[in-house]
Amino acid sequence: MPALKPSEYSARITWLGVAGDSSRDLRAERRAQIFASYAGFEGDCHAGLTRASCVRVTAQHLKGTEIRNTRQLSILSVEELAQIAAAMELAHLDPGALGASIVLEGIPDFSHVPPSSRLQAPSGASLVIDMENRPCVLPGRVIEERHPGHGPRFKSAARGRRGVTAWVEREGILQLGDRLRLHLPDQPVWAPV
Amino acid sequence: MPALKPSEYSARITWLGVAGDSSRDLRAERRAQIFASYAGFEGDCHAGLTRASCVRVTAQHLKGTEIRNTRQLSILSVEELAQIAAAMELAHLDPGALGASIVLEGIPDFSHVPPSSRLQAPSGASLVIDMENRPCVLPGRVIEERHPGHGPRFKSAARGRRGVTAWVEREGILQLGDRLRLHLPDQPVWAPV
Repeated sequence: MPALKPSEYSARITWLGVAGDSSRDLRAERRAQIFASYAGFEGDCHAGLTRASCVRVTAQHLKGTEIRNTRQLSILSVEELAQIAAAMELAHLDPGALGASIVLEGIPDFSHVPPSSRLQAPSGASLVIDMENRPCVLPGRVIEERHPGHGPRFKSAARGRRGVTAWVEREGILQLGDRLRLHLPDQPVWAPV
Repeated sequence: MPALKPSEYSARITWLGVAGDSSRDLRAERRAQIFASYAGFEGDCHAGLTRASCVRVTAQHLKGTEIRNTRQLSILSVEELAQIAAAMELAHLDPGALGASIVLEGIPDFSHVPPSSRLQAPSGASLVIDMENRPCVLPGRVIEERHPGHGPRFKSAARGRRGVTAWVEREGILQLGDRLRLHLPDQPVWAPV
């Protein structure tokens, strides 16, 4: 029996984007289709087979150490974006302001989808979910420019709803409207005694 | 708060090995130290940044499709190897017969360590656990040569104890006796309604 199995869950791509310069802000520009290569999305500042380790992994690596890049893509859900917007008292939240790579509709509790799950597109392209993406303050600054007074609410509003980070396991095209199938590994709770 | 945190668990490397030709058998040869590159263990038949998809992932990919290689390494635990041996009515099981890359001592219920966990060596080398490795019949054939009558018991004896598959996230040396630290992502059980 394989360890990775197709689930009954799938989700539709409602947004695709490419982030520019993350040292300036996280803003991403919308696209209708993107080729997902082993390095990620072409032209995206998070693309690369490897990356210099960042502040998120200082418990493992001295900042700037070369490691494989498991944060090529930032994937969020429409449903959780709406929850974040509501918690920030905004009518709508632009995925581009959060530096999103992909926004999906149709998978409940998306930020907690198990690590090592796969999302597969009709083209065959397959994305590996590394783990939950913890919110930081950066998107709040972009939001603040458009909605003064609301930006600082982002980090707490996005807790448990900021989606996941992912990387490309099989290359291929992703398009708006594509339906991605969720493939799940087993979820035994590891409870050593 | 980072999504990946050092745990109180660590494990000692008691065996390191390089597998030869997996089309013939899975046998691995013992080594005292190995450089773990982004492609895996040099000279191992499972090494590679990418691989041709195998029968284990036919629910995702037509056999032979190029995908990223998340099965570079096979990691098992001393404790579970002893349990497999006992269930097969053998005094000892040679990790080489199972094509092991690494055998560790000190992490309970090792085969169920959460996907996307990391194991980090003193050199800084970091290994990402993809998921549980499901037992197949191949090691049983190697075991059968040495212990006639016992080989066919392998697959059921190894269920839930065959360790995990993993890939190299940060390059570095691994040595016998090294203590690897286990880093864990959150383990919320995803239970969509």
